Amino acid sequence: MNNKKFDLSAMKLPEELKKLSPGECDELASQIRQKLITTVSKNGGHLSSNLGTVELTISLHRVFDSPKDKIVWDVGHQSYTHKLLTGRAADFSTIRTEDGLSGFPRPDESRHDAFVSGHSSTSISAALGIAVSMKLKGDKHHTIAVIGDGAFTGGEAFEGLNNAGKSGTNLIIVLNYNEMSISKNVGATAKYLATLRTKESYHKTKTAVERVLDHTPLVGAPIKKVVRGSKNALKDMLIHSTMFEDLGFEFVGPLDGHNIEELDEGLSAAKALCAPTVVLVNTQKGHGYPPAEANPGGYHGVGAFDLSTGNPDVVSDDSYSAVFGRKLLSIAYSDERICAVTAAMKFGTGLQYFHKALPERFFDVGIAEQHAVTFSAGLATNGMIPVFAVYSTFLQRSYDQLIHDLAIMGTHAVIGVDRAGIVGEDGETHQGIFDIPFLTTIPNMTIYSPTDYAELEVCLEQALLKDKGVCAVRYPRGKQPQGHKNTSPAADIVKSVQGNKVCAVTYGRLYYDLLAARETVRKQGFDFDIIKPVKVFPIDKDMTEELRQYERVFVFEECYKYGSLGEKYAACGVKCELTALDGFVKHGSVRSLLDEHGLSADKMAEKLLGYLKHDET
Amino acid sequence: MNNKKFDLSAMKLPEELKKLSPGECDELASQIRQKLITTVSKNGGHLSSNLGTVELTISLHRVFDSPKDKIVWDVGHQSYTHKLLTGRAADFSTIRTEDGLSGFPRPDESRHDAFVSGHSSTSISAALGIAVSMKLKGDKHHTIAVIGDGAFTGGEAFEGLNNAGKSGTNLIIVLNYNEMSISKNVGATAKYLATLRTKESYHKTKTAVERVLDHTPLVGAPIKKVVRGSKNALKDMLIHSTMFEDLGFEFVGPLDGHNIEELDEGLSAAKALCAPTVVLVNTQKGHGYPPAEANPGGYHGVGAFDLSTGNPDVVSDDSYSAVFGRKLLSIAYSDERICAVTAAMKFGTGLQYFHKALPERFFDVGIAEQHAVTFSAGLATNGMIPVFAVYSTFLQRSYDQLIHDLAIMGTHAVIGVDRAGIVGEDGETHQGIFDIPFLTTIPNMTIYSPTDYAELEVCLEQALLKDKGVCAVRYPRGKQPQGHKNTSPAADIVKSVQGNKVCAVTYGRLYYDLLAARETVRKQGFDFDIIKPVKVFPIDKDMTEELRQYERVFVFEECYKYGSLGEKYAACGVKCELTALDGFVKHGSVRSLLDEHGLSADKMAEKLLGYLKHDET
Repeated sequence: MNNKKFDLSAMKLPEELKKLSPGECDELASQIRQKLITTVSKNGGHLSSNLGTVELTISLHRVFDSPKDKIVWDVGHQSYTHKLLTGRAADFSTIRTEDGLSGFPRPDESRHDAFVSGHSSTSISAALGIAVSMKLKGDKHHTIAVIGDGAFTGGEAFEGLNNAGKSGTNLIIVLNYNEMSISKNVGATAKYLATLRTKESYHKTKTAVERVLDHTPLVGAPIKKVVRGSKNALKDMLIHSTMFEDLGFEFVGPLDGHNIEELDEGLSAAKALCAPTVVLVNTQKGHGYPPAEANPGGYHGVGAFDLSTGNPDVVSDDSYSAVFGRKLLSIAYSDERICAVTAAMKFGTGLQYFHKALPERFFDVGIAEQHAVTFSAGLATNGMIPVFAVYSTFLQRSYDQLIHDLAIMGTHAVIGVDRAGIVGEDGETHQGIFDIPFLTTIPNMTIYSPTDYAELEVCLEQALLKDKGVCAVRYPRGKQPQGHKNTSPAADIVKSVQGNKVCAVTYGRLYYDLLAARETVRKQGFDFDIIKPVKVFPIDKDMTEELRQYERVFVFEECYKYGSLGEKYAACGVKCELTALDGFVKHGSVRSLLDEHGLSADKMAEKLLGYLKHDET
Repeated sequence: MNNKKFDLSAMKLPEELKKLSPGECDELASQIRQKLITTVSKNGGHLSSNLGTVELTISLHRVFDSPKDKIVWDVGHQSYTHKLLTGRAADFSTIRTEDGLSGFPRPDESRHDAFVSGHSSTSISAALGIAVSMKLKGDKHHTIAVIGDGAFTGGEAFEGLNNAGKSGTNLIIVLNYNEMSISKNVGATAKYLATLRTKESYHKTKTAVERVLDHTPLVGAPIKKVVRGSKNALKDMLIHSTMFEDLGFEFVGPLDGHNIEELDEGLSAAKALCAPTVVLVNTQKGHGYPPAEANPGGYHGVGAFDLSTGNPDVVSDDSYSAVFGRKLLSIAYSDERICAVTAAMKFGTGLQYFHKALPERFFDVGIAEQHAVTFSAGLATNGMIPVFAVYSTFLQRSYDQLIHDLAIMGTHAVIGVDRAGIVGEDGETHQGIFDIPFLTTIPNMTIYSPTDYAELEVCLEQALLKDKGVCAVRYPRGKQPQGHKNTSPAADIVKSVQGNKVCAVTYGRLYYDLLAARETVRKQGFDFDIIKPVKVFPIDKDMTEELRQYERVFVFEECYKYGSLGEKYAACGVKCELTALDGFVKHGSVRSLLDEHGLSADKMAEKLLGYLKHDET
């Protein structure tokens, strides 16, 4: 170590990385780790996954020429070092803050971000599209997809592999195998990858098969002769020794993901192949920061990481998710039919309680939302009551399965739609603003949107034990307001109706804001009625009949405007004035985003007063 | 052969199958084939895929005890023999007709149909759910998923495999490898499976590895000794010789899918394992019917089969699909950026012209709709203009990718939404009635719904060359009315406005019915205006302003009511009376289904007259 101090903002990056010695790279990696730790401790975000990929990212930018070579980051939460090395070091302190850098790759933020990400398992498909377009244009550059073993459990990754293997493109898939995930990742693929990873005899290139044979007593030499000299089935068995080679890829690895020289060498070898290639890289989440290495979760004061995102966003005991998880467990104790399903989000969705108490009825299927729904449908078909708890944004991937595998037959299942509404700092790819629009397009769907914990519990119980068909119970990220008390939780409709000619309608957590808005309005001498559906869909006919009587009905919804409930009220003849989200919602704090979109108490009051005052004149 | 004549309606089935000798089974298979040919030639449907699975189905019902053992058919188009053998022989002539048997498995039709199907690649996930529920209940019966190599390219199948391999359940996956598909199926998996299939040295059980070694000169014996005696990496390489074993399954096969004895033996062996097992069965589409064997497509007077469904539904030159395909090609000749993408539906979507003329820019990705969209996004990111042509119902599987990989960045791509609207005989799982509802929930989406060929061409050209972002061009199955002439095709709005106080709005092919309805209405001395959007979304503000002036606006839409455009007009203050579909739509003829749902010319006229007459009084 020369203890050289690097000024990332002043360096010409990523070009200058190529001039560094491996020792200088190690020093740079160490400085980057400090920066990551400092920044994430302030802004939140993904620490361990980024600490694990520092050397890999440095090496990628040494071996390849971004942006001519294109790097596609799967999920994208591990792209912080990439951002630091591609001209964004000066702005790095703004990451995940309003108007600051995004926590995920965005082509509109930098030409080095080859593709948008946030959701899992898309990188191979996207990178293949880019690689094919290069091939069509005669461009000899490479496209590199960087994908973790967690994301590898998603079916789209397999679809991508299936198409990429024989594509004849300069596509490199870097499979980032996180040491931490070994015990946590699920499914057969994970176990298979673990065997690859730990195979001491395993080869860095195919020719290394022969090295294995050289060291195999008794039969090594003659086998080697047979292997070299023939094309028989035996050779096939020996040479096709990874699943990736079965699928048509060259294979390089496993590489030590924290050894710059080994990474440079392995990635250079892959580059030289000019063929679809899988490079297996072993990394350690939290690498280089002892507290995070020892307990990556503990560093953030949380119990564990969620596998899929590496996100330390484990729910606290005081949260909608935890209330959901505990209530589900309490019902499941007395009803053996109830099963819990998660797509790699056990901690994020509060299912850890269920897992601990009733492990035989708990299923973590990996990042596989399609499978999760169809699997749940299979369980339900044979008499179980499955509950799939999933973030609103990820449920988008199950749209067809909800229709085809559950709704058509009217199969009874409950979807716990967590993180419904604006989620804040994770930004556009993660906002839960489409669940009301897309779930309402599914025939016979029932949707609850409780406001507080007590209502959430009542709704979950009703969805599990009284309703039929597919029931979604949606609730926001985070916790109910401190000091909140609800003495009369409802699963149907809450009304505060006093004969005013204007009514306001909202549901879920916005109810608090609407109540506050009414205080403001009342202080100015005006008033309006409030109707809050809890079972928000199907739409209650008596409610719309009642709403039709109002001169004006103001509807406030934390979802995309097209497909909102306000539209449906309007179609029932209600004179609606809808306030909802008019497109994708950027990253920022939830409060500030709600205000920006007219959904804070202040903005609601302003809108209502605007009407009431005008109406009076 | 004893030429015994079986009366399927009189037999106690499936129980009596177990009493038959293999020779009798062959005779039965032959009679079933006759029945399939006779019926499908009358009712349409899937012939070759069913001819290919006659013996497999017989053997499944001999070895297992349905409905205690559960059989899940992937896609389900190959379930005709299963229907004949499970109490539906007497009704078989009604298959795919209104109020008759469905062309797909439906649990509400028979307790032998363990799970609904129609879409591809869901069977493993569903069967695993059933198998797990059995395990939880202590039920030792088996669940069998029957999946073709085409469906195997869908990511959900992989998600299912990944979870099933180590599940400890009595799950058997029968991989039905269709000989006919070898040259047509796409991707690395297909090629890999082909090598398994044709491996002469390949084993029926793992111990057969040793048989291979016995016949390997020079080194066989010593390897066998090593394999038997150690647990080293070499053994791993030899024993883990299929991808399925890598993923944790037992493996049996390949079996001759037309040899009852071999099937009985292989399936019995799989059953005895009581562990997650993959059984590879080689079948021949169209088997046993010489014309279909020689040219399965030719028998129906069509050029070829679509891989994914085995559906002989190749579009004729006179169809919306063919017009789309030819127009796309004509534009692509002069614009090198344009690429065509299909998910195993080259013939169904009219892309065969493009494939033939510009193969380097044509991509059949297999049944992988998620990948198709993300791959298209990758192409577009690097300057190409991808066109993904896909049936409306299958596009449901790309919902998240449309949002996440295309819409967020505003990436320009065109989706050809084929079979939009009611498709008829394929029934609930295939109706294209959700695309308007779900596509309109995606920000910045543009949607065209042309009425005739000329408009389709104009819309496609505008979507490709003038618009930005994601553009969907949706068009129905089949052809425009004979003798139809459109002298002024529009890509925006068509108006027939003469100052009436009532207006009717529709789009796409329903425009013909609305014109006919107006004739009827006029004959009775009444009249109404017509406004037909062609670019149906985003909603034209001037149009809704104009619609607001009417006393009443009747909207007719061939889509599910929630998420319809009528809802959105109502939200703009239009006094709408919406006629749309109020749930899933069963199988039947398109004409009869439209009438049943109030969307025929007669029903439209009736509805309008009802209002106009009442209004007059």
